[in-house]
Amino acid sequence: MLIAFQGEIGAFSEEAVRALVPGAEPVPQPSFEAVFEAVTEARVDYALIPIENSLFGSVHINYDLLEAHALWIAGEINLRIRHHLMAVPGATLDGLREVHSHPQALGQCRTYLRTHLPRAQAIPAYDTAGAARMVARRGEPHLAAIASERAAAEYGLVVLAPGIESNHQNYTRFLLLTRSPEAVPPGLPDAPAKTSIVYSLHHNVPGGLFKSLAVFALRDIDLFKIESRPLVGSPGQYLFYLDLAGAHTDAPVQRALDHLREISATLKVLGSYPGGRTVG
Amino acid sequence: MLIAFQGEIGAFSEEAVRALVPGAEPVPQPSFEAVFEAVTEARVDYALIPIENSLFGSVHINYDLLEAHALWIAGEINLRIRHHLMAVPGATLDGLREVHSHPQALGQCRTYLRTHLPRAQAIPAYDTAGAARMVARRGEPHLAAIASERAAAEYGLVVLAPGIESNHQNYTRFLLLTRSPEAVPPGLPDAPAKTSIVYSLHHNVPGGLFKSLAVFALRDIDLFKIESRPLVGSPGQYLFYLDLAGAHTDAPVQRALDHLREISATLKVLGSYPGGRTVG
Repeated sequence: MLIAFQGEIGAFSEEAVRALVPGAEPVPQPSFEAVFEAVTEARVDYALIPIENSLFGSVHINYDLLEAHALWIAGEINLRIRHHLMAVPGATLDGLREVHSHPQALGQCRTYLRTHLPRAQAIPAYDTAGAARMVARRGEPHLAAIASERAAAEYGLVVLAPGIESNHQNYTRFLLLTRSPEAVPPGLPDAPAKTSIVYSLHHNVPGGLFKSLAVFALRDIDLFKIESRPLVGSPGQYLFYLDLAGAHTDAPVQRALDHLREISATLKVLGSYPGGRTVG
Repeated sequence: MLIAFQGEIGAFSEEAVRALVPGAEPVPQPSFEAVFEAVTEARVDYALIPIENSLFGSVHINYDLLEAHALWIAGEINLRIRHHLMAVPGATLDGLREVHSHPQALGQCRTYLRTHLPRAQAIPAYDTAGAARMVARRGEPHLAAIASERAAAEYGLVVLAPGIESNHQNYTRFLLLTRSPEAVPPGLPDAPAKTSIVYSLHHNVPGGLFKSLAVFALRDIDLFKIESRPLVGSPGQYLFYLDLAGAHTDAPVQRALDHLREISATLKVLGSYPGGRTVG
């Protein structure tokens, strides 16, 4: 079973693929667009995409790609993003002079670096897994990378200090995409418990958002996520992203969605799927 | 007047500083944390931070930093992110063999690169302005960067192809931060027209979000933004980010905020400010 993801071997997305569908083969892709193409054109069985991070927000571009492709959300997983300091075997903390990683990772580990490695220079790289690979290739003991545990294992590096990020509340939520609601990989919990939708309202309806949420509140349907996104070039127009409790085939959810269709300009159901575990 | 921003000279944030407060001196900082520290410790007069991008979502980490620092939002601006292909003077499109840029920029210009430069290799860099600087330093005519117009000017490169991104709906919204509501830079429109707040609700109140939005809907106060953010480690608990019409000193807004305080667990007003222009 092939699952496409964006990034290199050792990236956090690859870790998420392995945690969600053990035994699947992660297939690296250079961009999110390439991930969507690979699954749409059936070169892989599924795709895994990040949809939101607890520090860096929703990945709107993946919502756009979900709207543009006829794919279905079949599962989700929350992965804790832990940053480890790693170097070649034999390297010591005292000997480190350069720490390579993605600027976000360097920023998140700034307090550790200032306190423990004041003489090491932080050098930005374009991704964490790539920094680990470079440190392994060069093989010099004064070089370190900040990356995932998986990257250390993949490139034969040793972790000198685990979990050095200041904010431990760093989680990324990933979605598993299929070409049809029927094609769900074995091993996922059966019953869909969540539904994701995207909708827009007719222009200039006062209190439109409030009314659209009433279709769920009046039926006691819980919401897990709500987000407005301005439609560029259409001032005052928004897309709304909603995650709600229940499957789209449950009677109350079905009635709420019918009701929402009456009052919205557009509505797309992106998928119903089991609520995801948190790992890492 | 000094304004701190995250990134290098030639970054889009620097362009936003110059567009919002002409004549101010942009002061580069290595991270968002450093930007907040610089203005809090009065080493600069103001700070400019990105808060959301039309393709990549809200920058939650900057909401966290807003909560952790006693700063005030005094203004905003929307900057169109345009990607230009640039090289040293004398270089030609036909001669290009490498295109350097941030992976997001390379992804956004993928269709152009495939169509017009099929023989050039796309090489990821850690930021767009850094790629432009590197191309200028190496001075070789087979190298190109994808970066901002400002980066081309800064590093003496010529634009071989402007605006090569596939999706032209790429905008970043920046916020101007001050140490106090009184210290607003000259030149901004006077009247605050928008207020940004962040709040949380008591746990397990059914329909809590719906009720909290009622305090605005019942007073016909328009909302420009709503976003829920799960509180990591507290399942079912959320922070809500809201931008609403009016200043926090307007009577109806004041009453709505008092009402919201009654039913919310926490509430912080981040600032009232004039609605921003869109530039670029």
